[in-house]
Amino acid sequence: MFEGKVVLTGVKPTGTPHLGNYLGAIKPAIQLGAKAVAEGGKHYMFIADYHAINAEKDPLVLNQKLKEIACIYLAFGLDATKSVFFRQSDIPEVHEFTTILYAYTPKGFMNKAHAYKAAVDKNREANKPDDDGINMGLYTYPVLMASDILLYDSSLVPVGKDQVQHVEIARDIAGAINAWYHEPILRLPDAHIEENVAVVPGVDGRKMSKSYGNVIPVFATDAEIKKAIFSIKTDSRAPDEPKDPEEVLVYQIFKAIATPDAVAEMATGLREGKMGYGQAKNMLLDAVLKEVSPFREKYAYYMAHFDEVEAMLQKGAETARPVAKQTLNRLKNIVFGK
Amino acid sequence: MFEGKVVLTGVKPTGTPHLGNYLGAIKPAIQLGAKAVAEGGKHYMFIADYHAINAEKDPLVLNQKLKEIACIYLAFGLDATKSVFFRQSDIPEVHEFTTILYAYTPKGFMNKAHAYKAAVDKNREANKPDDDGINMGLYTYPVLMASDILLYDSSLVPVGKDQVQHVEIARDIAGAINAWYHEPILRLPDAHIEENVAVVPGVDGRKMSKSYGNVIPVFATDAEIKKAIFSIKTDSRAPDEPKDPEEVLVYQIFKAIATPDAVAEMATGLREGKMGYGQAKNMLLDAVLKEVSPFREKYAYYMAHFDEVEAMLQKGAETARPVAKQTLNRLKNIVFGK
Repeated sequence: MFEGKVVLTGVKPTGTPHLGNYLGAIKPAIQLGAKAVAEGGKHYMFIADYHAINAEKDPLVLNQKLKEIACIYLAFGLDATKSVFFRQSDIPEVHEFTTILYAYTPKGFMNKAHAYKAAVDKNREANKPDDDGINMGLYTYPVLMASDILLYDSSLVPVGKDQVQHVEIARDIAGAINAWYHEPILRLPDAHIEENVAVVPGVDGRKMSKSYGNVIPVFATDAEIKKAIFSIKTDSRAPDEPKDPEEVLVYQIFKAIATPDAVAEMATGLREGKMGYGQAKNMLLDAVLKEVSPFREKYAYYMAHFDEVEAMLQKGAETARPVAKQTLNRLKNIVFGK
Repeated sequence: MFEGKVVLTGVKPTGTPHLGNYLGAIKPAIQLGAKAVAEGGKHYMFIADYHAINAEKDPLVLNQKLKEIACIYLAFGLDATKSVFFRQSDIPEVHEFTTILYAYTPKGFMNKAHAYKAAVDKNREANKPDDDGINMGLYTYPVLMASDILLYDSSLVPVGKDQVQHVEIARDIAGAINAWYHEPILRLPDAHIEENVAVVPGVDGRKMSKSYGNVIPVFATDAEIKKAIFSIKTDSRAPDEPKDPEEVLVYQIFKAIATPDAVAEMATGLREGKMGYGQAKNMLLDAVLKEVSPFREKYAYYMAHFDEVEAMLQKGAETARPVAKQTLNRLKNIVFGK
């Protein structure tokens, strides 16, 4: 399926991930990339640090977050010898490419972009001018993202449903350029939406999210993870009362992480009234700790040996940059009639 | 006055210049640059080719115009061994610098930019949507221009009164960045408005402008120049009728180009009724040909030996680029906390 395809994933530094981030986004991205490479395709994964500066202006915080995100992906198993893993800010070509794309990007595209529209809506609700507090980085962000995509001749960009628009904008800009010059200069990318991605509920039953304060942390101590798991909402039914597993929150979270055998065991136990919530929570705790323990160690290792991570990122940039240069020059020479 | 100062001029390819362009913009820019260098300052002059792609999308036309503009400035006497003469597109750092500036540029700055507002007004007059036909290149152009200015630590930017806004935007962005980091990272530029610049009337008495079709060409044959000069508007007064020179169009144009002695001679002749319009026009023709003949030859030479021009531009880029890199890295390292 992935032979000859180029899969591109961009990651923004978002702070310490929780179980929902890991199972719902990070793990599928790493697995998809590995699959693409195994099947004869390519996988580029970059840290979108230039997108991050629009929101994070404290250099120390930004620097720390950028280190963390690199270590997070490596800890979770990204293989930097197979995927091309690099930092956006190590590929200067993306900015010149962006300047060229601007000349072919109708301003109307930006006005319709979700992130900008959401910011405008927020201003209107607060009775502020539409563009209050909005910087040009936020506004132009879809074009930089289109560059990130088009520069590596990406064919597939794994995205959530709310990000399909970004790939569409990249497609539209590339299509306009190709049409203008009557040449297939830029490859048109497709959005790749994973259908079977786990949506992990939080300890209160809503979607797991830092903003809800309902997360099960990943890079935490055993005690912290245990505390989160034992705070998972339950009802007051007795352990020997038969329960529909699908109505038990612990089970729903367990399904997202445990082996099929273990999942079946818990389901049977709950259904037959042979398993109480405490026991179920302990099973979940075991499964989570088993899954995340090696990650925690690797994460701690990479954070303590960031020079090794830096070397990997530099190597990634060395692989990505010639591709970027080639695409940029192809477009630049045509635009300037060289 | 210019010791330690950095004077920066950007030129857009605008097609073949006329006498008004030459006397009103090109000559003063070249003289100012030479003066700055002579007094111990620096002069950067760059061809704004990346600004040009927003409007000119025909690669052959664009390429030709870009060649022409380089030859025009050299023909008119720009000394590329003293001024740093280069192409914007040979300095990739300007684009990455722009991406950083975006994060500190309120979108409101762009909404107020003259060029964008003029395009919106035009759309409204035609009952079209505000942003109809406006590309992101036009919209973001003041930030790229701010980069052009700030990247070379420019202290003075010679501009017409209608372009003061560009320098103000550059100042404001630089000021915001310096204030955020409590450090004078970027030099705040000042606009430099030449007060004594000649405003050359066209052959019909209005401002000389290609759009009015009233120009005296510069890079044309003697016959073409003569034809333009002899079409200068006159009245039917007899040659021996005394005339106020300031009311004679030929004289007004002559003033802008001739030596003080020749100007005095024509003034006396007109005032005393000793000079007819034909004679005045011949004097003007002589003055124009004397001024432009060497330029035409040099222009033809450079156009025919563009490899020499290319070498000068490359040398200029080699001088400008390390400065650009230094400024970019200074800002980038602070923003990313490196």
